[in-house]
Amino acid sequence: MIANHLFGACLPTFGNCADRYCLSGYGGGGANMQEMLDLARQVEGLDGLELVGNWHVNDQNIRDVAKMFSDRGLKISMLVPDLWTQAKWGKGSLAAPDTPTRRAAVDEIKKVLDWAAELDCPYIDVWPGQDGYDYAFQADYLEAWKWLRDGLIECADHNDKVRLLVEYKLKEPRTHCFVNGAAKVLLLLAGIDKVGVLLDVGHAMAAGENAPEAAALLASYGKLDYLHLNDNYHCWDDDMMVGSVHLVEYLELVYWLKRVNYQGWLTLDIFPYREDGVRAATECHQWMEAFFRAVDRIGMEAIAEVIKQADACTSSQLVRKALSL
Amino acid sequence: MIANHLFGACLPTFGNCADRYCLSGYGGGGANMQEMLDLARQVEGLDGLELVGNWHVNDQNIRDVAKMFSDRGLKISMLVPDLWTQAKWGKGSLAAPDTPTRRAAVDEIKKVLDWAAELDCPYIDVWPGQDGYDYAFQADYLEAWKWLRDGLIECADHNDKVRLLVEYKLKEPRTHCFVNGAAKVLLLLAGIDKVGVLLDVGHAMAAGENAPEAAALLASYGKLDYLHLNDNYHCWDDDMMVGSVHLVEYLELVYWLKRVNYQGWLTLDIFPYREDGVRAATECHQWMEAFFRAVDRIGMEAIAEVIKQADACTSSQLVRKALSL
Amino acid sequence: MIANHLFGACLPTFGNCADRYCLSGYGGGGANMQEMLDLARQVEGLDGLELVGNWHVNDQNIRDVAKMFSDRGLKISMLVPDLWTQAKWGKGSLAAPDTPTRRAAVDEIKKVLDWAAELDCPYIDVWPGQDGYDYAFQADYLEAWKWLRDGLIECADHNDKVRLLVEYKLKEPRTHCFVNGAAKVLLLLAGIDKVGVLLDVGHAMAAGENAPEAAALLASYGKLDYLHLNDNYHCWDDDMMVGSVHLVEYLELVYWLKRVNYQGWLTLDIFPYREDGVRAATECHQWMEAFFRAVDRIGMEAIAEVIKQADACTSSQLVRKALSL
Amino acid sequence: MIANHLFGACLPTFGNCADRYCLSGYGGGGANMQEMLDLARQVEGLDGLELVGNWHVNDQNIRDVAKMFSDRGLKISMLVPDLWTQAKWGKGSLAAPDTPTRRAAVDEIKKVLDWAAELDCPYIDVWPGQDGYDYAFQADYLEAWKWLRDGLIECADHNDKVRLLVEYKLKEPRTHCFVNGAAKVLLLLAGIDKVGVLLDVGHAMAAGENAPEAAALLASYGKLDYLHLNDNYHCWDDDMMVGSVHLVEYLELVYWLKRVNYQGWLTLDIFPYREDGVRAATECHQWMEAFFRAVDRIGMEAIAEVIKQADACTSSQLVRKALSL
Repeated sequence: MIANHLFGACLPTFGNCADRYCLSGYGGGGANMQEMLDLARQVEGLDGLELVGNWHVNDQNIRDVAKMFSDRGLKISMLVPDLWTQAKWGKGSLAAPDTPTRRAAVDEIKKVLDWAAELDCPYIDVWPGQDGYDYAFQADYLEAWKWLRDGLIECADHNDKVRLLVEYKLKEPRTHCFVNGAAKVLLLLAGIDKVGVLLDVGHAMAAGENAPEAAALLASYGKLDYLHLNDNYHCWDDDMMVGSVHLVEYLELVYWLKRVNYQGWLTLDIFPYREDGVRAATECHQWMEAFFRAVDRIGMEAIAEVIKQADACTSSQLVRKALSL
Repeated sequence: MIANHLFGACLPTFGNCADRYCLSGYGGGGANMQEMLDLARQVEGLDGLELVGNWHVNDQNIRDVAKMFSDRGLKISMLVPDLWTQAKWGKGSLAAPDTPTRRAAVDEIKKVLDWAAELDCPYIDVWPGQDGYDYAFQADYLEAWKWLRDGLIECADHNDKVRLLVEYKLKEPRTHCFVNGAAKVLLLLAGIDKVGVLLDVGHAMAAGENAPEAAALLASYGKLDYLHLNDNYHCWDDDMMVGSVHLVEYLELVYWLKRVNYQGWLTLDIFPYREDGVRAATECHQWMEAFFRAVDRIGMEAIAEVIKQADACTSSQLVRKALSL
Repeated sequence: MIANHLFGACLPTFGNCADRYCLSGYGGGGANMQEMLDLARQVEGLDGLELVGNWHVNDQNIRDVAKMFSDRGLKISMLVPDLWTQAKWGKGSLAAPDTPTRRAAVDEIKKVLDWAAELDCPYIDVWPGQDGYDYAFQADYLEAWKWLRDGLIECADHNDKVRLLVEYKLKEPRTHCFVNGAAKVLLLLAGIDKVGVLLDVGHAMAAGENAPEAAALLASYGKLDYLHLNDNYHCWDDDMMVGSVHLVEYLELVYWLKRVNYQGWLTLDIFPYREDGVRAATECHQWMEAFFRAVDRIGMEAIAEVIKQADACTSSQLVRKALSL
Repeated sequence: MIANHLFGACLPTFGNCADRYCLSGYGGGGANMQEMLDLARQVEGLDGLELVGNWHVNDQNIRDVAKMFSDRGLKISMLVPDLWTQAKWGKGSLAAPDTPTRRAAVDEIKKVLDWAAELDCPYIDVWPGQDGYDYAFQADYLEAWKWLRDGLIECADHNDKVRLLVEYKLKEPRTHCFVNGAAKVLLLLAGIDKVGVLLDVGHAMAAGENAPEAAALLASYGKLDYLHLNDNYHCWDDDMMVGSVHLVEYLELVYWLKRVNYQGWLTLDIFPYREDGVRAATECHQWMEAFFRAVDRIGMEAIAEVIKQADACTSSQLVRKALSL
């Protein structure tokens, strides 16, 4: 737990993280799911983990996976349909230029919705990361928008036990993803009440957004369902540990999470390429607890009072006081 | 004209452009409106100009301004309410933290709507550039959103002869503007049918958007009303001449303007700090004509066929062919 | 003072800051130099101020300026030759494409060197902000490089009582400045021992540099002579207060300043457009003191030990401990 | 050939490109080196290929590799020591924090120098991509700088038949690489005459540099030895095809290559994840030929004349004329 929130992590935190240069990974982490789960349990306060279809879970191992989790007292916080780990999704999933691939994407999502129901997992995360384009004159933006909406509408009603969330990102793996920001995803989901949003804090930052503002906006439209936590240096999804760069932005984010009464998971989506996964996740946990303590120390009303003044010097004092400097 | 579009420019193109270091301006340009208009007439194909309230037009000179334009056969393509040239708007206009300033912003907009009607100007451009924040804990994002909507709703019905447009921008003069992207402005204007959008191509680029995609998205929601043309190196609103950096993006933009049947103005919003304004505007005109010719040379159907293939190599060939290389 | 460092500010901190939209300024601040100095004295710990030629000091007022400072017990920490506030420098100063302007720039620098000597000011800051280009095919990079070196070499020997420093910046007012980074300025000054470097921390950040690394590099070449402090959101020189965004980077910067035994001024270069200048400068002072205290609390050796481990989790713990979280 | 330059490509152009999400690759390309070479031969004008140690060449296969190339009339334009494809280099190579790894890096480089000599390959490319840091307080910048210099100095003299080049990059795979820009690499190599520089055009762009200026600067220090060609959207090393984004910048680059009398290879470093490698390389070839033709059409003197004017409108005309628009 972090404050009153369930605290999770993506499973690869405890595996062997690779990038496009070092495809075999930087080493460390568990060699299989059992080992990764055993590592995860060493993280103080960790309540559950996210799994990616194909990478971690499939029709064959789903029962085993459930047991591995229950044996260790861990929840499955999220299932992520595999719409991005295989070459077949390379030109898109829900908005692929060809009909069969779009069809396959919808089927994949429905299948994972059912898996999630079976596993008592409350959410699935549709991340249309391959849905976009790399070059000019390579996408029909209006068709793609319609395909995305049609696909999501079809999936929304498939299984009422599980809420489908959409995760946005500016770029990577495409140079341009269609669903690239908080306002864009809200526009996309207008009128599709059953579908919510997963806010990846680092995606917001890398998209040039101010994460606290993105969180407030999503919440005001009833769609702040789930959070991915990580940090980066802007411009790219570095998937670094919480607390590494944007301390002030995180502090303000925690204020807004409390302000909009966010009740959901706080789940790490970090890539500790060269770090020990257990220690990296533990660091993030400590930072998040520190931010919650800092906000509590100042108090919600006192902060609201500062915001009302709209005075940068007063805001600066608030931050320094919150951080005990 | 450019192709079948009216071609305009912001008046300061023909004045003396200043920045925060060289406040008295880099020189050149007309010393007063008459001189600026006389320069403007030297630009081949120029049909009209945009004026900014307070800077260019006010209660005292409005008749004179009308005459100056009609004498020269120039249209007023747009009036821009002054919500950003004076210290009183420093902390915001429609979303200022204090009620009297918000009230004053609404009044200013209504006044300029009436001026526009009087001058047979079809649009006003509400650019809430001062509505934002610079630091963390300096803005109540949800209140601001409500204030923006309330203000626009109040103004929307004021004068049916003139259409109110909203122009978005990521940052500057604030480090964060509330209305910062194409999807954000569409979300803001959901349900406010009478209010449209002004797409500044450079603002889209500087916001990390792909301008052709932004144009298509706005058009699909019935809100691509007016265009500002300029170029930049991403990250900042450099207000450079068309044709200086993003040739491919402009080529694709022209395709999409034709595809969505855009009928509106093509108006320059450039800051030729160190350039001759007449020559700079003429250059932009020539580039735009070249882009329209290039699209016509290939043909709309041939381009649509390439887009459908979603193949980067085919797209690359298209661009090279379009540019006669 | 901040720790053992003289603490300064640029004079416009206490004036009326303008940008290209609000040319008459956002208000507040002193109306003249006397008022600005009186405001400056209200900032706890402030030892001196920077002045810009033409804006603040000229042949006529130099004696008066000296007296105004001495009357108030303030030092002049730096004189900045005016190579950027007038249209005549619009296309460059030391690297202007025409010979007379280059000549005039050298003369201006020499004049200000002599003023500095007369005023017991130890440095002048040559900021070649107008030396660059905006468009492709607009500059001869190799000629410009030679002109910059020739000009600096000529000025270096002019007055041995004063050290000439060069300040680098990636862009603004040009879209590309020639002297755009720490390594570039070191390369430019190779063999010109008498000329040093002014590191503007925000310029380093906006140039994509890590400021602590830039400081260490400059110091290792014997050229970390003077510091400008401010903060920004990357990509642009926002000239915000210290402590607004990059807390971790500032913490590490302070470590490196102590490590390389930096003894120079810590001078604010902020643009408090919408803030009270006295309070803004005071905030910066408090943040800087806090960073120095935080480094002292941990201790130089303990930090060096952490760095040696090259382990991100250990580094993360260090930062959290330093900030008392 | 392109104009009078040898034209090359990195071998993975013809393989199966992977990223961190789709680790098994997006498909297509050759399954082994023979197949990749056979594909490469289909690219009109291709003279040779770059190979990466460990990935493509090793002690066991070096003779076979030589034969595969000679059988197909292809040159090996470059060998790249493997300092970045294995976990053992994760924390650095020449500037790794531990002595044995630094030692191993030097040995690896020497070994590849000897391989290159054996293969009649004139260059090796030391890309210290893992030499950097991800977090604050994770690197001793001054030690790292010394280690880099010491390592390069030791390798420089190892085999006089082969020239060692250093390739710079701002970031990736580390969030910060030490050798991150044109000026930085020149500073690093000051006094190390035998070591040259490989300019990756996309790295220059992603580092916020203007590639033509970077090329001119490197050439003026006698260190523009070899070029990698590709394009991107700034901010990240997208490794896209030439001609996709920065047409004007490439046009100016070609002018400067001719101006400084560059005689070296023009080698593609693209990642055609979702494209056919042969077609992608062919597109790049056609674009480069088009840029050379465009510069020739205008003429070197005419361009020099335009540059001398330092007038953006004249430069804009030049570009439009060069592109036949």
